[in-house]
Amino acid sequence: MTPKRITGVLSPVVTPFKADLSPNAEQFVRQCRWLLSQNVGLAVFGTNSEANSLSTDEKIELLDRLIAAGVDPARMMPGTGCCALTDSVRLTRHAVKLGCGGVLMLPPFYYKGVSDDGLFRSFAEVVERVGDAGLRVYLYHIPPVSNVPITLTLVERLLKAYPGVIAGAKDSSGNWNNTKAMLDQFAAAGFDVFPGAETFLLAGMRHGGAGCISATANVNPAAIARLYDSWRAPDADAQQKRLDEIRGTFAKYPMIPALKAAVAHWSGVAEWATVRPPLVPLTREQASALVSDLQQRGFDMPGLRG
Amino acid sequence: MTPKRITGVLSPVVTPFKADLSPNAEQFVRQCRWLLSQNVGLAVFGTNSEANSLSTDEKIELLDRLIAAGVDPARMMPGTGCCALTDSVRLTRHAVKLGCGGVLMLPPFYYKGVSDDGLFRSFAEVVERVGDAGLRVYLYHIPPVSNVPITLTLVERLLKAYPGVIAGAKDSSGNWNNTKAMLDQFAAAGFDVFPGAETFLLAGMRHGGAGCISATANVNPAAIARLYDSWRAPDADAQQKRLDEIRGTFAKYPMIPALKAAVAHWSGVAEWATVRPPLVPLTREQASALVSDLQQRGFDMPGLRG
Repeated sequence: MTPKRITGVLSPVVTPFKADLSPNAEQFVRQCRWLLSQNVGLAVFGTNSEANSLSTDEKIELLDRLIAAGVDPARMMPGTGCCALTDSVRLTRHAVKLGCGGVLMLPPFYYKGVSDDGLFRSFAEVVERVGDAGLRVYLYHIPPVSNVPITLTLVERLLKAYPGVIAGAKDSSGNWNNTKAMLDQFAAAGFDVFPGAETFLLAGMRHGGAGCISATANVNPAAIARLYDSWRAPDADAQQKRLDEIRGTFAKYPMIPALKAAVAHWSGVAEWATVRPPLVPLTREQASALVSDLQQRGFDMPGLRG
Repeated sequence: MTPKRITGVLSPVVTPFKADLSPNAEQFVRQCRWLLSQNVGLAVFGTNSEANSLSTDEKIELLDRLIAAGVDPARMMPGTGCCALTDSVRLTRHAVKLGCGGVLMLPPFYYKGVSDDGLFRSFAEVVERVGDAGLRVYLYHIPPVSNVPITLTLVERLLKAYPGVIAGAKDSSGNWNNTKAMLDQFAAAGFDVFPGAETFLLAGMRHGGAGCISATANVNPAAIARLYDSWRAPDADAQQKRLDEIRGTFAKYPMIPALKAAVAHWSGVAEWATVRPPLVPLTREQASALVSDLQQRGFDMPGLRG
């Protein structure tokens, strides 16, 4: 059986917290359902999910709750790359067991200046210990945050060692030249490249990309998914421009608190603004300014208010 | 009861792994006993312990094994700062329950460019959730690796909010001016500053430092501890020079694999050379060159070979 590959637009789903900073699983399920209704897949436990502020137990619990609620695992690409090999193996194995369409894997990110040999061995150990032909690994290249890059040479080595299992990458370098190099070198081999923001969605699609995985797919999902569906349409460039404007409005603030402020406003659930430390929420003034700016641009999150 | 504060020289104890990369608890206990016999305390789960390549469960198990073996918790300062608040709280709570003399706390290190407000809140949440007057927190400033600095302003704020509980810092910035500023501003208030290498042991002691916590205390413990004990002696500068030479020999190689190669050689236990990915062991040639260079300098690890 060759399951259908995940493609399209995915959201690194923001994680809702209660006042005591514990994850709110019911709210999380509701949010995932809404995103699916907007034609956007679920890259839960990404950078914008504050995934690295959650323990492995908390991630497993949230994943189990999504499955228990009937959310389709084929639409899920949970982040499973942790600092500790044992955590990455445990979380990846769990995701595969649940039938997740893929996993998005950060390199171990504490130790800096590590070699490609060491990173190859990190990914290889996870792949071999999980040992499941259904595993689909998407390599997560986000040097501005992880400070541990995934080089083109490393991709090449991994693809050669584990063809089929190494299924693609999310490129959050913000560097189109790197995304284009990934596409040029590996897309033909069935390696699915997702730019890490809709900024490069259209450019990516024109060069054989698979979609995008973007922070702002949390707040502007339908419009981003529409460009994915209609990237050959005459208005594609105009759509891209409009997406960039909305993203630019969020980018005036720290991204994760800004996403959560917007979700809090348009859902009517104030608790959504809660972030785990080391992040801090937007101030009341910042949140008002963001919402007001978005409203002036005709932005809305239809269907979010339960 | 005011327990005696941890001072002197501590080792971020290297963690032994079996061939399957699981921690070797028996070997770990032996190593900790040997270090104590050399007059060096146990900063287990530090950077050089590959602590961030271990899961929280693995760290708790190793700590329990030390206690079960009768190793004195008052000599332990385990690293308990993780990316996830819930992991930091769980591990810190466990260390305090076991009676550890202190905990060495990294800031959450995935998200970069976070504010002092967010970092203050991170540490404050751990302190308040653990809620034990016996807690002694040593702040771990290691910007070359964590990329998340602990500023002097943050130290000041934390000391003011949690006097007594915020007990000191390990400064692994490698920047003497920063260590000196910490000493000048906070040592008088009972804040114990440990330079993150013996390079600044003598300078630190002359400015009111509390000792040092150093990678090379894994391999050269007695000599480093001797300088701590005799820093006012006439030969202190000569001692410092000799320590710097030995450290310099290790520093020609990636530090953690080099420490483990030396322990493997002088203990006669080859398995000690094992590291978890993303690290890679020294090559056979590198290990031979290191050992040969050390032997030419008259280096030894007396009492290590069981």
